[in-house]
Amino acid sequence: MTERVVPAARKTYLQGSRPDIRVPMREVPLTNGDAVVLYDTSGPYTDPAARTDVRRGLPALREAWIAERSDTAPYEGRAVRPGDDGLRAPVREGLLPRRPRRATGGAVTQRAYARRGEITPEMEFAALREGVEPEFVRDELAAGRAVLPANVNHPEIEPMVIGRNFLVKVNANIGNSAVASSIEDEVEKMTWATRWGADTVMDLSTGKDIHTTREWILRNSPVPVGTVPLYQAVEKVGGDPAELTWEVFRDTVIEQAEQGVDYMTVHAGVLLRYVPLTARRKTGIVSRGGSIMAAWCLAHHEENFLYAHFRELCEIFAAYDVTWSLGDGLRPGSIADANDEAQFAELRTQGELTAIAAEYGNQVMNEGPGHVPMHKIKENVDLQQEWCGGAPFYTLGPLTTDIAPGYDHITSAIGAAMIGWHGTAMLCYVTPKEHLGLPDRDDVKAGVIAYKIAAHAADLAKGHPGAQTWDDALSDARFGFRWEDQFNLSLDPDTARAFHDATLPAAPAKTAHFCSMCGPHFCSMKITRDVRRYADERGLDGDAALAAGMREKAAEFKAAGGRIHLPLSPGPS
Amino acid sequence: MTERVVPAARKTYLQGSRPDIRVPMREVPLTNGDAVVLYDTSGPYTDPAARTDVRRGLPALREAWIAERSDTAPYEGRAVRPGDDGLRAPVREGLLPRRPRRATGGAVTQRAYARRGEITPEMEFAALREGVEPEFVRDELAAGRAVLPANVNHPEIEPMVIGRNFLVKVNANIGNSAVASSIEDEVEKMTWATRWGADTVMDLSTGKDIHTTREWILRNSPVPVGTVPLYQAVEKVGGDPAELTWEVFRDTVIEQAEQGVDYMTVHAGVLLRYVPLTARRKTGIVSRGGSIMAAWCLAHHEENFLYAHFRELCEIFAAYDVTWSLGDGLRPGSIADANDEAQFAELRTQGELTAIAAEYGNQVMNEGPGHVPMHKIKENVDLQQEWCGGAPFYTLGPLTTDIAPGYDHITSAIGAAMIGWHGTAMLCYVTPKEHLGLPDRDDVKAGVIAYKIAAHAADLAKGHPGAQTWDDALSDARFGFRWEDQFNLSLDPDTARAFHDATLPAAPAKTAHFCSMCGPHFCSMKITRDVRRYADERGLDGDAALAAGMREKAAEFKAAGGRIHLPLSPGPS
Repeated sequence: MTERVVPAARKTYLQGSRPDIRVPMREVPLTNGDAVVLYDTSGPYTDPAARTDVRRGLPALREAWIAERSDTAPYEGRAVRPGDDGLRAPVREGLLPRRPRRATGGAVTQRAYARRGEITPEMEFAALREGVEPEFVRDELAAGRAVLPANVNHPEIEPMVIGRNFLVKVNANIGNSAVASSIEDEVEKMTWATRWGADTVMDLSTGKDIHTTREWILRNSPVPVGTVPLYQAVEKVGGDPAELTWEVFRDTVIEQAEQGVDYMTVHAGVLLRYVPLTARRKTGIVSRGGSIMAAWCLAHHEENFLYAHFRELCEIFAAYDVTWSLGDGLRPGSIADANDEAQFAELRTQGELTAIAAEYGNQVMNEGPGHVPMHKIKENVDLQQEWCGGAPFYTLGPLTTDIAPGYDHITSAIGAAMIGWHGTAMLCYVTPKEHLGLPDRDDVKAGVIAYKIAAHAADLAKGHPGAQTWDDALSDARFGFRWEDQFNLSLDPDTARAFHDATLPAAPAKTAHFCSMCGPHFCSMKITRDVRRYADERGLDGDAALAAGMREKAAEFKAAGGRIHLPLSPGPS
Repeated sequence: MTERVVPAARKTYLQGSRPDIRVPMREVPLTNGDAVVLYDTSGPYTDPAARTDVRRGLPALREAWIAERSDTAPYEGRAVRPGDDGLRAPVREGLLPRRPRRATGGAVTQRAYARRGEITPEMEFAALREGVEPEFVRDELAAGRAVLPANVNHPEIEPMVIGRNFLVKVNANIGNSAVASSIEDEVEKMTWATRWGADTVMDLSTGKDIHTTREWILRNSPVPVGTVPLYQAVEKVGGDPAELTWEVFRDTVIEQAEQGVDYMTVHAGVLLRYVPLTARRKTGIVSRGGSIMAAWCLAHHEENFLYAHFRELCEIFAAYDVTWSLGDGLRPGSIADANDEAQFAELRTQGELTAIAAEYGNQVMNEGPGHVPMHKIKENVDLQQEWCGGAPFYTLGPLTTDIAPGYDHITSAIGAAMIGWHGTAMLCYVTPKEHLGLPDRDDVKAGVIAYKIAAHAADLAKGHPGAQTWDDALSDARFGFRWEDQFNLSLDPDTARAFHDATLPAAPAKTAHFCSMCGPHFCSMKITRDVRRYADERGLDGDAALAAGMREKAAEFKAAGGRIHLPLSPGPS
């Protein structure tokens, strides 16, 4: 499988404390001899030295680390059944069968290790990616302020960390096609999303071939993979939520945990008594998982079985290191419903469940909305942080208005940037097709790019160390008319280059000391160079006295009544 | 000229206190028999009953209102000179010559009338558009918290008001083509931008045919038109900033005021002593006007002539009712330069000038940045409001990161939405081509739509009365599977419909009670209907006791230690 490499970028690796800790980064060489090293989510596919084969899967990077810990063992595992791929579908040819691992004793979660004071290779790997000390990662994991999703059955991932004190992450949702496609096509959706910067992917497949598609994605994914097991469980019972049982759900969770799913969305906070709170909403329940559980609760007039069996699920999650993504099944689906009683009732229950999961050493994220106007965004983070003990918040958008179907990557990038700034740890992307249809390749890219913008804007606003280095490098290139560097440093070099070429297509324009806005005869950047020369000639540059002198002049001016008079001249001449 | 009408939308008019006050609105009829009436910027072009001819221009809606005031008179006006269209260009055939008007006595500005307690037809027109009392518009204008840009020589406009207590407005920049195009093509850029919701346009043409292009746009524009007179002035002196003189600039301002330009960007705050403050910036001076004035100041070592002659300009602006858009020539061009000393020094001077202009009865806006990270956005509005006495703020974006050339409509829509929420009155759009090239038709649309999203998100967050009605109508349509209504209510019906059809193209799908996300067999919205029925059957709907009962149950649960137990059943059964 060939994956297009970012033009001009080189794969480089940061070496950790042991030979097998090699952290991939994207190095962008600049025409002035410098280089900028950026976080890289694209996996071995963008390394020309790596050989990848989707039918064999990626190398099992973490295999030795997991084995060395001697707290898990392979076992026979659950046999794959015809129903796993959808009731009416045959099991297709897939990858070679594997023997899954699970804990032989206590919790094998990264949080459990962190609490014991152990810095795992996974923690060191993630720390190197973030540019922080491994001890800091360990401490955040132990406190539950961060998660490092890493199922013991997904040894292929390049470990990463999600938490408010790290870079804001982006998740992209992918799902199987209505018409069964090839293993290459299914894997391509994941590599395409991570190529543009997705930090995790969620496989939201439904219908046929769910099990097989997931196997393909997991074996080839360098990023953590999340799922909503409820989607598969409901397929197993013929699509009728009322037919769901705890046993079917439990079986599905084990099936997926054995495959290596790193985090699972579970709508355990949709309690029976909350369901009527949605009756008078503008848009009721819009979460698929939330509505499935609401339907089940109403059909049986019993409490949500996910809530009832929550501790059993905690034990399973501890045995594989599956990270919780506690679903927000009652999230608002419209501006009118934002921050209402139903939403916050569920969030409070998420808080209770987060505390229970902590007893089991589980890693926990909390999912959040949805559709929220700007002035109600911060309250969402503040309450989640308070009620859920600082656990990572993982939000969909939020969309800041309902009036722009077709552009909801933008309506939601606004909310995502803001909620990221206020403390959301991971942003679930929204594509332009939201509310309208299934995203295609272009939509996935548009969604990921919009969310990388939101995440990076949030990193800047949070003052994440090093975030501004990237902006500075690009702005330096822009100011210096280093067009190629400007393209190569941008989130989407292809588009930046194409847009430039649409106006000034000739090759010499790439090195021209002007741009199409002002043309060659007049250039504001050229004038700034003159300003610098002017300042240099008068000894003003690099001189702190300059600004002070200016302030003096300004004070004189104000003292004189602020009336217009002139000339006021700066500096000594 | 034919302009495509929004599918399914009807032009409707709100009738004012006199027959010639008819305010155009966009009425969207819904399939359930209701209709939603939206603010409409598209002018007579979208009224099938109107006949438009670009060679005659739009009807002079305000002509009688201006004449009735008997405070202006036509006069011979400045003769058009060859240089007006660029030094090397001949004057082309244009519209019929007109005799301009100007004041015969004191200020003829909407602010001067407002201060005298007069509610003009323009104020009533704008009030009807906004859904507020005319007296409120008058009061905001008198206080300088709002502007109603309406040059006495631009009688064709449909009056509108810009201020923090009104709907957030959007400006689109247009400019002439490198290759001279037809009158139809030039006018089309303006009608295209207003078709998608631009509230004003700025004609930033440079080079050849400046005068003629502007004449064409003004005579055909239903929205206020802004310019940067400096651009034409520098063309008149052969493109060299050092050759600029006050006389050339003054001549250009009068030329443009006579044509009917409604607001002008003037970089009068770029003082000589501020220029060296930019020397150590990451990206120096990036404003074209700012760098022209900086170059002039350095070349002559004299104070900015726009500052020196500011009171003379105030007198001219008062005689035509040209609104100030005090330029921010030292705005930051990168994240690194945001909120720095140079930027705020100029803003403080804008404040001084705003106060001086008020003496002359002038209407004043202040321009703002630029590139600003999220955490520094609010300070911009707060200082501008404090230093400029609450005058309307008019900001470009701001862009919240530098790393996404090709997507700066998104990086800046994030900042625009936030700064709009905090009090910016008008947002100057940014297109995807920003920093890279000249926007084409698609870019203009992408920029306007992104900014309409930002402006509306800000209206929602500010709690503008009525803003949420639109969202509610669309969400109702979504929840009720009224697909056609959802399309027609969206900012871009064409795109919403096309995206839907890409997944579910068949005509019956437009009335189907499901969507492509969940398919026909399972539907979260259908489940919500079941929830409503469930609540209805138990008498829960419309019963405030329900929520109270739920809280009781929750309290019991907490009192029991918050342990998981079940079932908890809601309601009486």
